Amino acid sequence: MTATAPQFGRVAVVGIGLIGGSVACGLRSRGLATEVVGYDPHDAGVAQRLGLVDRMAASAEDALRGADLVVLAAPVAANCDWLRRIGEAPAGVLGPQAVITDVSSTKRSIADAAVRWLGARLPRFVASHPIAGSERQGPDAASSGLFEGNVALLCPASTSAADAVERVEMLWRALGARIGTMTAQRHDELFAAVSHWPHAVAFALSAALGSSALADEARRFSGAGLRDTTRIGASSPTLWADILLDNRDASLAAASAFRAELDAIEKALADGDRDRLAAALARGADWRRTL
Amino acid sequence: MTATAPQFGRVAVVGIGLIGGSVACGLRSRGLATEVVGYDPHDAGVAQRLGLVDRMAASAEDALRGADLVVLAAPVAANCDWLRRIGEAPAGVLGPQAVITDVSSTKRSIADAAVRWLGARLPRFVASHPIAGSERQGPDAASSGLFEGNVALLCPASTSAADAVERVEMLWRALGARIGTMTAQRHDELFAAVSHWPHAVAFALSAALGSSALADEARRFSGAGLRDTTRIGASSPTLWADILLDNRDASLAAASAFRAELDAIEKALADGDRDRLAAALARGADWRRTL
Repeated sequence: MTATAPQFGRVAVVGIGLIGGSVACGLRSRGLATEVVGYDPHDAGVAQRLGLVDRMAASAEDALRGADLVVLAAPVAANCDWLRRIGEAPAGVLGPQAVITDVSSTKRSIADAAVRWLGARLPRFVASHPIAGSERQGPDAASSGLFEGNVALLCPASTSAADAVERVEMLWRALGARIGTMTAQRHDELFAAVSHWPHAVAFALSAALGSSALADEARRFSGAGLRDTTRIGASSPTLWADILLDNRDASLAAASAFRAELDAIEKALADGDRDRLAAALARGADWRRTL
Repeated sequence: MTATAPQFGRVAVVGIGLIGGSVACGLRSRGLATEVVGYDPHDAGVAQRLGLVDRMAASAEDALRGADLVVLAAPVAANCDWLRRIGEAPAGVLGPQAVITDVSSTKRSIADAAVRWLGARLPRFVASHPIAGSERQGPDAASSGLFEGNVALLCPASTSAADAVERVEMLWRALGARIGTMTAQRHDELFAAVSHWPHAVAFALSAALGSSALADEARRFSGAGLRDTTRIGASSPTLWADILLDNRDASLAAASAFRAELDAIEKALADGDRDRLAAALARGADWRRTL
Protein backbone atom coordinates (compact mmCIF):
# COMPACT_ATOMS: atom_id res chain seq x y z
CA MET A 1 0.00 0.00 0.00
CA THR A 2 3.05 2.24 -0.29
CA ALA A 3 4.21 4.35 -3.21
CA THR A 4 7.80 3.11 -3.00
CA ALA A 5 9.37 0.99 -5.74
CA PRO A 6 8.37 -2.69 -5.84
CA GLN A 7 10.57 -4.92 -3.66
CA PHE A 8 10.44 -7.71 -6.24
CA GLY A 9 10.80 -7.81 -10.00
CA ARG A 10 8.87 -10.49 -11.82
CA VAL A 11 7.40 -13.08 -9.43
CA ALA A 12 6.29 -16.44 -10.78
CA VAL A 13 3.60 -18.18 -8.74
CA VAL A 14 3.20 -21.81 -9.74
CA GLY A 15 -0.15 -23.27 -8.71
CA ILE A 16 -2.96 -20.76 -8.28
CA GLY A 17 -5.11 -22.30 -5.58
CA LEU A 18 -5.96 -20.89 -2.16
CA ILE A 19 -2.35 -20.26 -1.10
CA GLY A 20 -0.77 -19.46 -4.45
CA GLY A 21 -3.68 -17.23 -5.39
CA SER A 22 -3.39 -15.40 -2.06
CA VAL A 23 0.37 -14.88 -2.52
CA ALA A 24 -0.24 -13.58 -6.05
CA CYS A 25 -3.03 -11.15 -5.22
CA GLY A 26 -1.29 -10.13 -1.98
CA LEU A 27 1.77 -9.10 -4.01
CA ARG A 28 -0.37 -7.41 -6.64
CA SER A 29 -2.62 -5.45 -4.32
CA ARG A 30 0.38 -4.12 -2.38
CA GLY A 31 2.41 -3.21 -5.47
CA LEU A 32 5.25 -5.42 -4.27
CA ALA A 33 6.30 -6.82 -7.67
CA THR A 34 6.77 -5.33 -11.11
CA GLU A 35 4.82 -8.30 -12.51
CA VAL A 36 3.03 -11.28 -10.99
CA VAL A 37 2.92 -14.18 -13.44
CA GLY A 38 0.82 -17.20 -12.56
CA TYR A 39 0.97 -20.71 -13.92
CA ASP A 40 -1.47 -23.50 -13.26
CA PRO A 41 -2.18 -26.39 -15.63
CA HIS A 42 -5.67 -26.69 -14.09
CA ASP A 43 -6.53 -23.03 -14.47
CA ALA A 44 -9.52 -22.28 -16.66
CA GLY A 45 -9.20 -18.51 -16.67
CA VAL A 46 -10.39 -17.99 -13.11
CA ALA A 47 -7.16 -16.46 -11.77
CA GLN A 48 -7.09 -13.83 -14.51
CA ARG A 49 -10.79 -13.11 -14.16
CA LEU A 50 -10.46 -12.66 -10.40
CA GLY A 51 -7.48 -10.34 -10.91
CA LEU A 52 -5.18 -12.50 -8.82
CA VAL A 53 -2.29 -12.20 -11.31
CA ASP A 54 -1.06 -9.76 -13.93
CA ARG A 55 -1.07 -12.60 -16.42
CA MET A 56 -1.13 -16.37 -16.63
CA ALA A 57 1.82 -18.02 -18.37
CA ALA A 58 1.15 -20.36 -21.26
CA SER A 59 3.85 -22.86 -20.36
CA ALA A 60 6.21 -23.83 -17.57
CA GLU A 61 9.12 -22.17 -19.36
CA ASP A 62 7.08 -19.01 -19.95
CA ALA A 63 6.24 -18.94 -16.25
CA LEU A 64 9.85 -19.11 -15.11
CA ARG A 65 11.37 -16.81 -17.74
CA GLY A 66 12.99 -13.77 -16.21
CA ALA A 67 11.56 -14.35 -12.73
CA ASP A 68 13.24 -12.69 -9.77
CA LEU A 69 11.34 -14.91 -7.34
CA VAL A 70 9.60 -18.26 -7.91
CA VAL A 71 6.91 -19.36 -5.44
CA LEU A 72 5.94 -23.01 -5.79
CA ALA A 73 2.37 -23.36 -4.55
CA ALA A 74 1.27 -26.64 -6.14
CA PRO A 75 0.80 -29.84 -4.08
CA VAL A 76 4.08 -31.03 -2.59
CA ALA A 77 4.83 -33.75 -5.15
CA ALA A 78 4.25 -31.29 -7.97
CA ASN A 79 6.48 -28.73 -6.23
CA CYS A 80 9.26 -31.33 -6.02
CA ASP A 81 8.87 -31.95 -9.72
CA TRP A 82 9.09 -28.22 -10.38
CA LEU A 83 12.47 -28.20 -8.66
CA ARG A 84 13.53 -30.82 -11.19
CA ARG A 85 12.24 -28.66 -14.06
CA ILE A 86 14.06 -25.63 -12.67
CA GLY A 87 17.27 -27.63 -12.30
CA GLU A 88 16.95 -28.85 -15.88
CA ALA A 89 15.82 -25.53 -17.42
CA PRO A 90 18.07 -24.02 -20.08
CA ALA A 91 20.47 -21.42 -18.63
CA GLY A 92 18.70 -18.45 -20.20
CA VAL A 93 15.24 -19.11 -18.78
CA LEU A 94 15.75 -18.31 -15.10
CA GLY A 95 18.55 -16.03 -13.93
CA PRO A 96 21.14 -17.66 -11.63
CA GLN A 97 20.29 -15.30 -8.76
CA ALA A 98 16.54 -15.98 -8.86
CA VAL A 99 15.25 -16.99 -5.44
CA ILE A 100 13.01 -20.06 -5.16
CA THR A 101 10.64 -20.88 -2.34
CA ASP A 102 7.62 -23.12 -1.83
CA VAL A 103 4.58 -23.21 0.43
CA SER A 104 4.23 -26.96 0.94
CA SER A 105 2.76 -28.30 4.20
CA THR A 106 5.69 -30.72 4.51
CA LYS A 107 9.32 -29.71 4.26
CA ARG A 108 11.64 -32.72 4.25
CA SER A 109 10.69 -34.02 0.81
CA ILE A 110 11.02 -30.62 -0.83
CA ALA A 111 14.40 -30.11 0.89
CA ASP A 112 15.50 -33.51 -0.44
CA ALA A 113 14.26 -32.64 -3.92
CA ALA A 114 16.20 -29.36 -3.82
CA VAL A 115 19.42 -31.23 -3.02
CA ARG A 116 18.69 -33.75 -5.71
CA TRP A 117 17.78 -31.39 -8.56
CA LEU A 118 18.96 -27.83 -8.05
CA GLY A 119 22.73 -28.23 -8.45
CA ALA A 120 24.36 -24.80 -8.53
CA ARG A 121 21.01 -23.18 -7.70
CA LEU A 122 20.71 -24.96 -4.36
CA PRO A 123 21.79 -21.86 -2.31
CA ARG A 124 18.91 -19.93 -3.91
CA PHE A 125 16.24 -22.26 -2.51
CA VAL A 126 14.63 -21.48 0.85
CA ALA A 127 11.70 -23.66 1.93
CA SER A 128 8.78 -21.94 3.61
CA HIS A 129 5.36 -22.79 5.03
CA PRO A 130 2.86 -20.04 5.69
CA ILE A 131 0.61 -21.18 8.54
CA ALA A 132 -2.63 -20.07 7.02
CA GLY A 133 -5.26 -21.95 5.20
CA SER A 134 -8.83 -22.98 5.14
CA GLU A 135 -10.94 -26.03 4.53
CA ARG A 136 -11.91 -24.13 1.38
CA GLN A 137 -9.77 -24.52 -1.69
CA GLY A 138 -9.07 -23.03 -5.05
CA PRO A 139 -8.54 -19.54 -6.42
CA ASP A 140 -12.06 -18.48 -5.47
CA ALA A 141 -11.04 -18.73 -1.81
CA ALA A 142 -7.83 -16.68 -2.26
CA SER A 143 -7.52 -13.36 -0.48
CA SER A 144 -4.75 -10.81 -0.28
CA GLY A 145 -4.99 -10.69 3.51
CA LEU A 146 -4.72 -14.44 4.12
CA PHE A 147 -1.29 -14.26 5.76
CA GLU A 148 -1.81 -11.13 7.84
CA GLY A 149 -1.13 -11.77 11.51
CA ASN A 150 -0.15 -15.37 10.83
CA VAL A 151 3.25 -17.03 11.03
CA ALA A 152 5.34 -17.97 8.00
CA LEU A 153 7.80 -20.69 8.93
CA LEU A 154 11.08 -20.81 7.06
CA CYS A 155 13.19 -23.94 6.92
CA PRO A 156 16.46 -22.77 5.40
CA ALA A 157 19.07 -25.46 4.81
CA SER A 158 22.73 -25.05 5.72
CA THR A 159 23.25 -24.59 1.97
CA SER A 160 20.81 -21.65 1.70
CA ALA A 161 22.41 -18.29 0.90
CA ALA A 162 21.83 -15.57 3.51
CA ASP A 163 20.53 -13.08 0.95
CA ALA A 164 18.07 -15.65 -0.40
CA VAL A 165 16.76 -16.26 3.13
CA GLU A 166 16.36 -12.50 3.53
CA ARG A 167 14.39 -12.24 0.29
CA VAL A 168 11.97 -14.96 1.37
CA GLU A 169 11.57 -13.36 4.80
CA MET A 170 10.86 -10.10 3.03
CA LEU A 171 8.16 -11.78 0.92
CA TRP A 172 6.21 -13.07 3.92
CA ARG A 173 6.70 -9.95 6.00
CA ALA A 174 5.41 -7.88 3.09
CA LEU A 175 2.31 -10.07 3.02
CA GLY A 176 1.74 -9.40 6.73
CA ALA A 177 3.18 -12.53 8.34
CA ARG A 178 5.59 -12.96 11.24
CA ILE A 179 8.64 -15.13 10.59
CA GLY A 180 9.54 -18.33 12.44
CA THR A 181 12.46 -20.60 11.64
CA MET A 182 13.17 -24.28 12.24
CA THR A 183 14.75 -27.25 10.49
CA ALA A 184 12.76 -29.25 7.95
CA GLN A 185 13.00 -32.31 10.23
CA ARG A 186 11.59 -30.45 13.24
CA HIS A 187 8.95 -28.83 11.04
CA ASP A 188 7.62 -32.16 9.84
CA GLU A 189 7.53 -33.67 13.35
CA LEU A 190 5.73 -30.60 14.66
CA PHE A 191 3.20 -30.40 11.84
CA ALA A 192 2.41 -34.09 12.01
CA ALA A 193 1.29 -33.38 15.58
CA VAL A 194 -0.42 -30.00 15.19
CA SER A 195 -1.92 -30.37 11.73
CA HIS A 196 -1.53 -33.58 9.76
CA TRP A 197 -2.83 -36.07 12.32
CA PRO A 198 -5.49 -33.64 13.64
CA HIS A 199 -6.80 -33.55 10.07
CA ALA A 200 -7.01 -37.35 10.10
CA VAL A 201 -8.90 -37.14 13.39
CA ALA A 202 -11.38 -34.60 11.99
CA PHE A 203 -11.94 -36.75 8.89
CA ALA A 204 -12.46 -39.84 11.08
CA LEU A 205 -14.93 -38.08 13.41
CA SER A 206 -16.89 -36.94 10.37
CA ALA A 207 -16.78 -40.38 8.77
CA ALA A 208 -17.98 -42.07 11.96
CA LEU A 209 -21.04 -39.81 11.96
CA GLY A 210 -21.64 -39.98 8.24
CA SER A 211 -21.62 -43.75 8.20
CA SER A 212 -23.87 -44.14 11.24
CA ALA A 213 -27.63 -44.50 11.51
CA LEU A 214 -27.54 -41.09 13.20
CA ALA A 215 -26.11 -39.25 10.18
CA ASP A 216 -29.22 -37.19 9.44
CA GLU A 217 -30.00 -36.23 13.02
CA ALA A 218 -26.33 -35.46 13.63
CA ARG A 219 -26.51 -32.98 10.78
CA ARG A 220 -29.65 -31.34 12.18
CA PHE A 221 -28.90 -31.27 15.88
CA SER A 222 -25.15 -30.94 16.32
CA GLY A 223 -23.83 -27.72 17.79
CA ALA A 224 -20.87 -25.41 17.41
CA GLY A 225 -18.58 -27.87 19.21
CA LEU A 226 -18.90 -30.53 16.52
CA ARG A 227 -18.77 -27.98 13.74
CA ASP A 228 -15.45 -26.67 15.05
CA THR A 229 -14.00 -30.06 15.91
CA THR A 230 -14.70 -31.41 12.42
CA ARG A 231 -14.23 -28.23 10.36
CA ILE A 232 -10.94 -29.34 8.79
CA GLY A 233 -12.60 -32.68 7.99
CA ALA A 234 -14.21 -30.87 5.06
CA SER A 235 -10.78 -30.39 3.47
CA SER A 236 -9.68 -32.07 0.25
CA PRO A 237 -9.23 -35.85 0.75
CA THR A 238 -6.65 -36.20 -2.03
CA LEU A 239 -4.63 -33.19 -0.88
CA TRP A 240 -4.52 -34.57 2.67
CA ALA A 241 -3.82 -38.11 1.57
CA ASP A 242 -0.74 -36.75 -0.17
CA ILE A 243 0.35 -34.66 2.81
CA LEU A 244 -0.05 -37.59 5.21
CA LEU A 245 1.83 -39.93 2.87
CA ASP A 246 4.58 -37.38 2.37
CA ASN A 247 4.99 -37.11 6.15
CA ARG A 248 4.13 -40.70 6.96
CA ASP A 249 6.54 -41.61 9.75
CA ALA A 250 5.96 -38.45 11.77
CA SER A 251 2.19 -38.73 11.21
CA LEU A 252 2.18 -42.31 12.44
CA ALA A 253 4.16 -41.23 15.51
CA ALA A 254 1.59 -38.49 16.16
CA ALA A 255 -1.14 -41.12 15.70
CA SER A 256 0.44 -43.26 18.41
CA ALA A 257 0.73 -40.38 20.87
CA PHE A 258 -2.91 -39.44 20.26
CA ARG A 259 -4.10 -43.03 20.59
CA ALA A 260 -2.32 -43.42 23.93
CA GLU A 261 -4.20 -40.42 25.34
CA LEU A 262 -7.55 -41.45 23.88
CA ASP A 263 -7.10 -45.02 25.13
CA ALA A 264 -6.43 -43.69 28.63
CA ILE A 265 -9.72 -41.76 28.49
CA GLU A 266 -11.62 -44.73 27.09
CA LYS A 267 -10.24 -47.17 29.68
CA ALA A 268 -10.99 -44.85 32.59
CA LEU A 269 -14.52 -44.44 31.21
CA ALA A 270 -14.99 -48.19 30.72
CA ASP A 271 -13.73 -48.76 34.28
CA GLY A 272 -16.07 -46.08 35.62
CA ASP A 273 -13.08 -44.44 37.32
CA ARG A 274 -14.06 -40.78 37.67
CA ASP A 275 -10.78 -39.59 39.16
CA ARG A 276 -8.67 -41.20 36.45
CA LEU A 277 -11.06 -39.98 33.75
CA ALA A 278 -11.05 -36.39 35.02
CA ALA A 279 -7.24 -36.49 35.32
CA ALA A 280 -6.89 -37.73 31.73
CA LEU A 281 -9.20 -34.98 30.46
CA ALA A 282 -7.38 -32.38 32.56
CA ARG A 283 -4.08 -33.22 30.85
CA GLY A 284 -5.69 -31.96 27.66
CA ALA A 285 -7.49 -28.96 29.13
CA ASP A 286 -4.36 -27.77 30.95
CA TRP A 287 -2.46 -27.49 27.68
CA ARG A 288 -5.38 -26.26 25.55
CA ARG A 289 -6.09 -23.41 27.91
CA THR A 290 -2.59 -22.06 27.26
CA LEU A 291 -3.19 -21.93 23.50
CA MET B 1 -39.12 -7.15 24.57
CA THR B 2 -42.94 -6.81 24.48
CA ALA B 3 -45.23 -4.93 26.79
CA THR B 4 -47.61 -7.88 27.19
CA ALA B 5 -48.00 -9.70 30.50
CA PRO B 6 -45.22 -12.14 31.46
CA GLN B 7 -45.75 -15.66 30.15
CA PHE B 8 -44.43 -17.17 33.37
CA GLY B 9 -44.98 -16.40 37.03
CA ARG B 10 -42.09 -17.09 39.35
CA VAL B 11 -39.32 -19.09 37.68
CA ALA B 12 -36.76 -20.91 39.80
CA VAL B 13 -33.39 -21.50 38.13
CA VAL B 14 -31.27 -23.98 40.04
CA GLY B 15 -27.56 -23.73 39.22
CA ILE B 16 -26.42 -20.36 37.88
CA GLY B 17 -23.57 -21.25 35.56
CA LEU B 18 -23.29 -20.60 31.83
CA ILE B 19 -26.61 -22.22 30.92
CA GLY B 20 -28.64 -21.46 34.03
CA GLY B 21 -27.37 -17.89 34.09
CA SER B 22 -28.29 -17.48 30.44
CA VAL B 23 -31.81 -18.84 31.03
CA ALA B 24 -32.24 -16.52 34.00
CA CYS B 25 -31.04 -13.33 32.34
CA GLY B 26 -32.77 -14.27 29.07
CA LEU B 27 -36.09 -14.46 30.95
CA ARG B 28 -35.35 -11.27 32.86
CA SER B 29 -34.24 -9.16 29.93
CA ARG B 30 -37.33 -10.13 27.94
CA GLY B 31 -39.79 -9.58 30.81
CA LEU B 32 -40.98 -13.18 30.46
CA ALA B 33 -41.43 -13.93 34.17
CA THR B 34 -42.88 -12.03 37.11
CA GLU B 35 -39.82 -13.05 39.13
CA VAL B 36 -36.62 -14.97 38.35
CA VAL B 37 -35.23 -16.62 41.48
CA GLY B 38 -31.83 -18.24 41.31
CA TYR B 39 -30.25 -20.80 43.58
CA ASP B 40 -26.67 -21.99 43.53
CA PRO B 41 -24.79 -23.35 46.53
CA HIS B 42 -21.53 -22.22 44.90
CA ASP B 43 -22.70 -18.69 44.20
CA ALA B 44 -20.72 -15.96 45.87
CA GLY B 45 -22.92 -13.03 44.90
CA VAL B 46 -21.89 -12.98 41.24
CA ALA B 47 -25.32 -13.77 39.75
CA GLN B 48 -26.94 -10.92 41.67
CA ARG B 49 -24.13 -8.51 40.87
CA LEU B 50 -24.34 -9.33 37.15
CA GLY B 51 -28.11 -8.83 37.24
CA LEU B 52 -28.81 -12.36 35.99
CA VAL B 53 -31.63 -12.89 38.52
CA ASP B 54 -34.14 -10.85 40.44
CA ARG B 55 -32.89 -12.48 43.62
CA MET B 56 -30.91 -15.47 44.85
CA ALA B 57 -32.72 -17.84 47.19
CA ALA B 58 -31.20 -18.60 50.55
CA SER B 59 -32.16 -22.28 50.56
CA ALA B 60 -33.47 -25.03 48.32
CA GLU B 61 -36.95 -24.68 49.81
CA ASP B 62 -36.85 -20.91 49.37
CA ALA B 63 -35.87 -21.41 45.70
CA LEU B 64 -38.78 -23.72 44.94
CA ARG B 65 -41.45 -21.91 46.93
CA GLY B 66 -44.28 -20.68 44.76
CA ALA B 67 -42.49 -21.37 41.48
CA ASP B 68 -44.54 -21.69 38.31
CA LEU B 69 -41.57 -23.21 36.44
CA VAL B 70 -38.42 -24.89 37.78
CA VAL B 71 -35.36 -25.05 35.51
CA LEU B 72 -32.69 -27.46 36.78
CA ALA B 73 -29.34 -26.22 35.43
CA ALA B 74 -26.85 -27.90 37.76
CA PRO B 75 -24.65 -30.82 36.63
CA VAL B 76 -26.72 -33.89 35.78
CA ALA B 77 -26.15 -35.80 39.04
CA ALA B 78 -27.17 -32.72 41.02
CA ASN B 79 -30.24 -32.25 38.81
CA CYS B 80 -31.26 -35.85 39.53
CA ASP B 81 -30.91 -35.15 43.24
CA TRP B 82 -33.07 -32.05 42.85
CA LEU B 83 -35.84 -34.24 41.44
CA ARG B 84 -35.60 -36.23 44.68
CA ARG B 85 -35.84 -33.01 46.73
CA ILE B 86 -38.83 -31.87 44.70
CA GLY B 87 -40.51 -35.24 45.11
CA GLU B 88 -39.91 -35.09 48.84
CA ALA B 89 -40.77 -31.40 49.33
CA PRO B 90 -43.72 -30.59 51.64
CA ALA B 91 -46.95 -30.10 49.69
CA GLY B 92 -47.09 -26.33 50.28
CA VAL B 93 -43.67 -25.50 48.84
CA LEU B 94 -44.24 -26.12 45.15
CA GLY B 95 -47.71 -26.02 43.59
CA PRO B 96 -48.90 -29.29 42.04
CA GLN B 97 -49.16 -27.71 38.58
CA ALA B 98 -45.59 -26.32 38.57
CA VAL B 99 -43.70 -27.43 35.48
CA ILE B 100 -40.19 -28.83 35.88
CA THR B 101 -37.51 -29.06 33.23
CA ASP B 102 -33.74 -29.48 33.13
CA VAL B 103 -30.90 -28.59 30.77
CA SER B 104 -28.64 -31.61 31.27
CA SER B 105 -26.42 -32.84 28.42
CA THR B 106 -27.66 -36.39 29.02
CA LYS B 107 -31.30 -37.36 29.23
CA ARG B 108 -31.73 -41.00 30.24
CA SER B 109 -30.54 -40.62 33.81
CA ILE B 110 -32.71 -37.57 34.47
CA ALA B 111 -35.70 -39.37 32.92
CA ASP B 112 -35.04 -42.35 35.23
CA ALA B 113 -34.70 -40.05 38.23
CA ALA B 114 -38.04 -38.42 37.36
CA VAL B 115 -39.76 -41.80 37.35
CA ARG B 116 -38.08 -42.74 40.59
CA TRP B 117 -38.72 -39.58 42.59
CA LEU B 118 -41.52 -37.43 41.23
CA GLY B 119 -44.58 -39.57 41.98
CA ALA B 120 -47.74 -37.60 41.25
CA ARG B 121 -45.63 -34.79 39.77
CA LEU B 122 -44.22 -37.00 37.03
CA PRO B 123 -46.54 -35.59 34.28
CA ARG B 124 -45.20 -32.10 35.09
CA PHE B 125 -41.60 -33.01 34.18
CA VAL B 126 -40.35 -32.46 30.61
CA ALA B 127 -36.64 -33.03 29.97
CA SER B 128 -34.87 -30.59 27.68
CA HIS B 129 -31.41 -29.92 26.30
CA PRO B 130 -30.63 -26.57 24.74
CA ILE B 131 -27.89 -27.12 22.14
CA ALA B 132 -25.81 -24.13 23.08
CA GLY B 133 -22.75 -23.81 25.13
CA SER B 134 -19.17 -22.82 25.18
CA GLU B 135 -15.85 -24.04 26.43
CA ARG B 136 -16.25 -21.14 28.87
CA GLN B 137 -18.12 -21.73 32.07
CA GLY B 138 -19.75 -19.95 34.96
CA PRO B 139 -22.12 -17.02 35.35
CA ASP B 140 -19.58 -14.59 33.88
CA ALA B 141 -20.02 -16.32 30.52
CA ALA B 142 -23.84 -16.18 30.63
CA SER B 143 -25.69 -14.12 28.04
CA SER B 144 -29.36 -13.50 27.38
CA GLY B 145 -28.89 -14.33 23.68
CA LEU B 146 -27.15 -17.70 24.15
CA PHE B 147 -30.06 -19.74 22.80
CA GLU B 148 -31.04 -17.51 19.90
CA GLY B 149 -31.01 -19.36 16.61
CA ASN B 150 -30.04 -22.63 18.31
CA VAL B 151 -32.08 -25.76 18.82
CA ALA B 152 -33.63 -26.77 22.14
CA LEU B 153 -34.26 -30.50 22.17
CA LEU B 154 -37.16 -31.78 24.23
CA CYS B 155 -37.36 -35.38 25.40
CA PRO B 156 -40.88 -35.69 26.77
CA ALA B 157 -41.77 -39.05 28.26
CA SER B 158 -45.04 -40.84 27.54
CA THR B 159 -46.04 -39.72 31.04
CA SER B 160 -45.48 -36.01 30.31
CA ALA B 161 -48.65 -33.86 30.28
CA ALA B 162 -49.33 -32.06 27.00
CA ASP B 163 -49.72 -28.68 28.69
CA ALA B 164 -46.39 -29.15 30.50
CA VAL B 165 -44.67 -29.91 27.18
CA GLU B 166 -46.22 -26.76 25.74
CA ARG B 167 -44.94 -24.67 28.64
CA VAL B 168 -41.39 -25.92 28.17
CA GLU B 169 -41.58 -25.36 24.42
CA MET B 170 -42.79 -21.84 25.17
CA LEU B 171 -39.81 -21.26 27.44
CA TRP B 172 -37.23 -22.12 24.78
CA ARG B 173 -39.07 -20.38 21.97
CA ALA B 174 -39.28 -17.26 24.10
CA LEU B 175 -35.49 -17.43 24.52
CA GLY B 176 -35.06 -17.61 20.74
CA ALA B 177 -34.54 -21.34 20.16
CA ARG B 178 -36.16 -23.71 17.68
CA ILE B 179 -37.70 -26.89 19.11
CA GLY B 180 -36.66 -30.45 18.29
CA THR B 181 -38.08 -33.58 19.90
CA MET B 182 -36.74 -37.09 20.40
CA THR B 183 -36.71 -39.83 22.99
CA ALA B 184 -34.20 -39.75 25.84
CA GLN B 185 -32.65 -42.98 24.53
CA ARG B 186 -32.16 -41.57 21.03
CA HIS B 187 -30.89 -38.31 22.47
CA ASP B 188 -28.15 -39.99 24.45
CA GLU B 189 -27.01 -42.13 21.51
CA LEU B 190 -26.95 -39.08 19.26
CA PHE B 191 -25.11 -36.84 21.71
CA ALA B 192 -22.54 -39.49 22.51
CA ALA B 193 -21.65 -39.34 18.82
CA VAL B 194 -21.96 -35.60 18.12
CA SER B 195 -20.77 -34.18 21.42
CA HIS B 196 -19.61 -36.45 24.23
CA TRP B 197 -17.01 -38.53 22.37
CA PRO B 198 -15.87 -35.57 20.23
CA HIS B 199 -15.09 -33.83 23.53
CA ALA B 200 -12.96 -36.83 24.53
CA VAL B 201 -11.18 -36.60 21.17
CA ALA B 202 -10.48 -32.88 21.61
CA PHE B 203 -9.15 -33.48 25.14
CA ALA B 204 -6.94 -36.33 23.85
CA LEU B 205 -5.54 -34.29 20.95
CA SER B 206 -4.69 -31.53 23.39
CA ALA B 207 -3.15 -33.95 25.88
CA ALA B 208 -0.99 -35.59 23.20
CA LEU B 209 0.45 -32.19 22.33
CA GLY B 210 0.76 -30.99 25.90
CA SER B 211 2.68 -34.06 26.99
CA SER B 212 5.04 -34.08 23.99
CA ALA B 213 8.47 -32.52 23.53
CA LEU B 214 6.78 -30.25 20.98
CA ALA B 215 4.38 -28.65 23.48
CA ASP B 216 5.93 -25.17 23.38
CA GLU B 217 6.39 -25.00 19.62
CA ALA B 218 2.91 -26.42 19.12
CA ARG B 219 1.57 -23.51 21.14
CA ARG B 220 3.54 -20.95 19.10
CA PHE B 221 3.14 -22.31 15.60
CA SER B 222 -0.20 -24.07 15.38
CA GLY B 223 -2.87 -22.53 13.21
CA ALA B 224 -6.61 -22.06 13.16
CA GLY B 225 -7.16 -25.73 12.30
CA LEU B 226 -5.76 -26.99 15.58
CA ARG B 227 -7.40 -24.21 17.56
CA ASP B 228 -10.81 -25.18 16.19
CA THR B 229 -10.27 -28.92 16.41
CA THR B 230 -9.23 -28.70 20.07
CA ARG B 231 -11.42 -25.79 21.21
CA ILE B 232 -13.79 -27.93 23.28
CA GLY B 233 -10.72 -29.59 24.82
CA ALA B 234 -10.49 -26.48 27.02
CA SER B 235 -13.81 -27.40 28.67
CA SER B 236 -14.15 -28.44 32.30
CA PRO B 237 -12.55 -31.89 32.89
CA THR B 238 -14.80 -32.74 35.85
CA LEU B 239 -17.99 -31.64 34.08
CA TRP B 240 -17.11 -33.78 31.06
CA ALA B 241 -15.97 -36.73 33.15
CA ASP B 242 -19.44 -36.71 34.68
CA ILE B 243 -21.21 -36.39 31.32
CA LEU B 244 -19.18 -39.24 29.80
CA LEU B 245 -19.78 -41.46 32.83
CA ASP B 246 -23.48 -40.64 32.82
CA ASN B 247 -23.67 -41.67 29.15
CA ARG B 248 -21.04 -44.38 29.32
CA ASP B 249 -22.41 -47.12 27.08
CA ALA B 250 -23.36 -44.82 24.22
CA SER B 251 -20.04 -42.95 24.53
CA LEU B 252 -18.10 -46.21 24.35
CA ALA B 253 -20.11 -47.18 21.26
CA ALA B 254 -19.26 -43.83 19.69
CA ALA B 255 -15.62 -44.43 20.63
CA SER B 256 -15.67 -47.74 18.75
CA ALA B 257 -17.19 -46.21 15.64
CA PHE B 258 -14.60 -43.43 15.68
CA ARG B 259 -11.72 -45.84 16.26
CA ALA B 260 -12.79 -47.98 13.30
CA GLU B 261 -12.62 -44.97 10.99
CA LEU B 262 -9.33 -43.69 12.41
CA ASP B 263 -7.79 -47.18 12.23
CA ALA B 264 -8.76 -47.40 8.55
CA ILE B 265 -6.94 -44.12 7.91
CA GLU B 266 -3.90 -45.19 9.92
CA LYS B 267 -3.64 -48.59 8.22
CA ALA B 268 -3.96 -47.11 4.74
CA LEU B 269 -1.27 -44.60 5.66
CA ALA B 270 1.02 -47.26 7.12
CA ASP B 271 0.49 -49.36 3.98
CA GLY B 272 1.24 -46.36 1.77
CA ASP B 273 -2.03 -47.02 -0.09
CA ARG B 274 -3.03 -43.63 -1.51
CA ASP B 275 -6.34 -44.74 -3.00
CA ARG B 276 -7.52 -46.40 0.21
CA LEU B 277 -6.32 -43.44 2.27
CA ALA B 278 -8.06 -40.87 0.06
CA ALA B 279 -11.25 -42.97 0.12
CA ALA B 280 -11.19 -43.16 3.93
CA LEU B 281 -10.71 -39.41 4.20
CA ALA B 282 -13.44 -38.79 1.60
CA ARG B 283 -15.96 -40.70 3.75
CA GLY B 284 -15.49 -37.95 6.33
CA ALA B 285 -15.36 -35.02 3.94
CA ASP B 286 -18.51 -36.14 2.11
CA TRP B 287 -20.53 -35.97 5.31
CA ARG B 288 -18.83 -32.91 6.80
CA ARG B 289 -19.50 -30.86 3.69
CA THR B 290 -23.23 -31.37 4.20
CA LEU B 291 -23.06 -29.93 7.74
